[in-house]
Amino acid sequence: MSALRRLVLDLLKPNEVETVQFARRLADIEGVDGANVSLLESDKDVQNLKITIEGESIDDEAVATEVEALGGTIHSVDEVVCGDRLVEESPTHQD
Amino acid sequence: MSALRRLVLDLLKPNEVETVQFARRLADIEGVDGANVSLLESDKDVQNLKITIEGESIDDEAVATEVEALGGTIHSVDEVVCGDRLVEESPTHQD
Amino acid sequence: MSALRRLVLDLLKPNEVETVQFARRLADIEGVDGANVSLLESDKDVQNLKITIEGESIDDEAVATEVEALGGTIHSVDEVVCGDRLVEESPTHQD
Amino acid sequence: MSALRRLVLDLLKPNEVETVQFARRLADIEGVDGANVSLLESDKDVQNLKITIEGESIDDEAVATEVEALGGTIHSVDEVVCGDRLVEESPTHQD
Amino acid sequence: MSALRRLVLDLLKPNEVETVQFARRLADIEGVDGANVSLLESDKDVQNLKITIEGESIDDEAVATEVEALGGTIHSVDEVVCGDRLVEESPTHQD
Amino acid sequence: MSALRRLVLDLLKPNEVETVQFARRLADIEGVDGANVSLLESDKDVQNLKITIEGESIDDEAVATEVEALGGTIHSVDEVVCGDRLVEESPTHQD
Amino acid sequence: MSALRRLVLDLLKPNEVETVQFARRLADIEGVDGANVSLLESDKDVQNLKITIEGESIDDEAVATEVEALGGTIHSVDEVVCGDRLVEESPTHQD
Repeated sequence: MSALRRLVLDLLKPNEVETVQFARRLADIEGVDGANVSLLESDKDVQNLKITIEGESIDDEAVATEVEALGGTIHSVDEVVCGDRLVEESPTHQD
Repeated sequence: MSALRRLVLDLLKPNEVETVQFARRLADIEGVDGANVSLLESDKDVQNLKITIEGESIDDEAVATEVEALGGTIHSVDEVVCGDRLVEESPTHQD
Repeated sequence: MSALRRLVLDLLKPNEVETVQFARRLADIEGVDGANVSLLESDKDVQNLKITIEGESIDDEAVATEVEALGGTIHSVDEVVCGDRLVEESPTHQD
Repeated sequence: MSALRRLVLDLLKPNEVETVQFARRLADIEGVDGANVSLLESDKDVQNLKITIEGESIDDEAVATEVEALGGTIHSVDEVVCGDRLVEESPTHQD
Repeated sequence: MSALRRLVLDLLKPNEVETVQFARRLADIEGVDGANVSLLESDKDVQNLKITIEGESIDDEAVATEVEALGGTIHSVDEVVCGDRLVEESPTHQD
Repeated sequence: MSALRRLVLDLLKPNEVETVQFARRLADIEGVDGANVSLLESDKDVQNLKITIEGESIDDEAVATEVEALGGTIHSVDEVVCGDRLVEESPTHQD
Repeated sequence: MSALRRLVLDLLKPNEVETVQFARRLADIEGVDGANVSLLESDKDVQNLKITIEGESIDDEAVATEVEALGGTIHSVDEVVCGDRLVEESPTHQD
């Protein structure tokens, strides 16, 4: 079965969990090389974050479990790359 | 006969099939190096996805069969690259 | 006589010819390294495509013959590069 | 525990602390390779700055302490990267 | 005397001369490495083309003579680079 | 103490001091590798310039002294980079 | 004294002097590696040109003298780079 190499998520995080802690816990998951967490919008109680996770073989269920354990809610899966290498989206005239 | 190196599809996927599973199954096809799946739009029942598949020799019929088996519907073929190397589209003044 | 290295065409293709077959047949022509076929617009009967062909020595008449044999109609020749190496268009203030 | 590799902060700095001194003190923190300080907006008493800190292993609490010691106020944490390598945010159609 | 390395021309070409032939003849000139011909606008009788010629030592008078022999009319000289290496235009705030 | 590697200034320069002389004097300062001076706006008496200075270890007070000696007035410090390497500002969704 | 590495000028050139000759004469100056001449605007009698000159050690007075000898008038000095290496302008939020 081919490996999951990149996973981009749009999610909500409660404000009491710090962004650095959130990123660290995602990066700690086995098979993950690194996690990029970018702030999209800030609210009274929650923050809307965009997460880019890359690795040799990411366990997407472990990611979902960790997000939930941190009090987060996945809003959408915006990009997924599987296979032997990281294939980038090719820009087209239909974009 | 020259090899198919890149295939970009615009398609609909039922929500009950997860995006990671969808990408994995496409990346598992012989001759495919990797599959990039990007979310274009989300609906109540379906998601509109843009798929970029690259490989040394992609079997486009196997891709079509797999998309169908996953409940997907191909909307359009937006880019195709065949040959000994990956030729990129050249930007022109007519774009 | 200097070699033709890149040929960019804007053309119409009947819908019954598949895009992958179209790209493959162009990439099969002698002297062609690869063919990129990008969808510009889709109609009831035809598709408007942008074709980027690159190679060490492209036979432009063989390309024209193949396009015709596939039922296509060349609308315009948008870019041509000839010579010992691929010279890119230089952007200027008159663009 | 995975390392913090990049930290991007939006903050306010009192005008009496010079920007060069501010950047230097942040770059002096252990585990920091360098600090980029960019001016966003200037006011009568304070300046709104964007800080990009990179390093092999940044201590985010030491950064917070130093910002406070310099009279600064962190407004938001705009980007965090943790892990074995610097993963960049992947652009998507949802941006 | 320093060498002419790049010459960008805006010109008109009669429709009966094919673009590929036009590019080939320019690329055939001594001292020219390659010629890029891009379509700007198409008319009933003529085409407006942008020509980018690069080489170790381009003879601009030979280019002008060849353009004329092919029935072309030079409208403007949009960029010229002379010297030991290809210096690119530097973007400034006055552009 | 960590080194100052880049300093970007917005300043006013009297017209009687030539831009080349201004750049040369800044580049002559010890620890400076080079100085880029770009014209933002020209007035009857003064010019508004953007200065980018890079070096292994820039002495910002020597720069301020030299600007003053040349009759210039620093309007704002727009970017500062300190540390072991040149960290670039990371683009975010809050920009 | 640090060397002048890049000089960008906005100038007027009489139409009777050809652009290629203009570029060649600037590139011929000692210490100049190459000269890029780009057309900004064309008038009945004169052309507005943007000149980018690069070299190991450009003599700006020799450039000014040559421009004058060719009938040109310098309108503004838009960019100057001095020092041991070519420092590029750093983009900031104040641009």
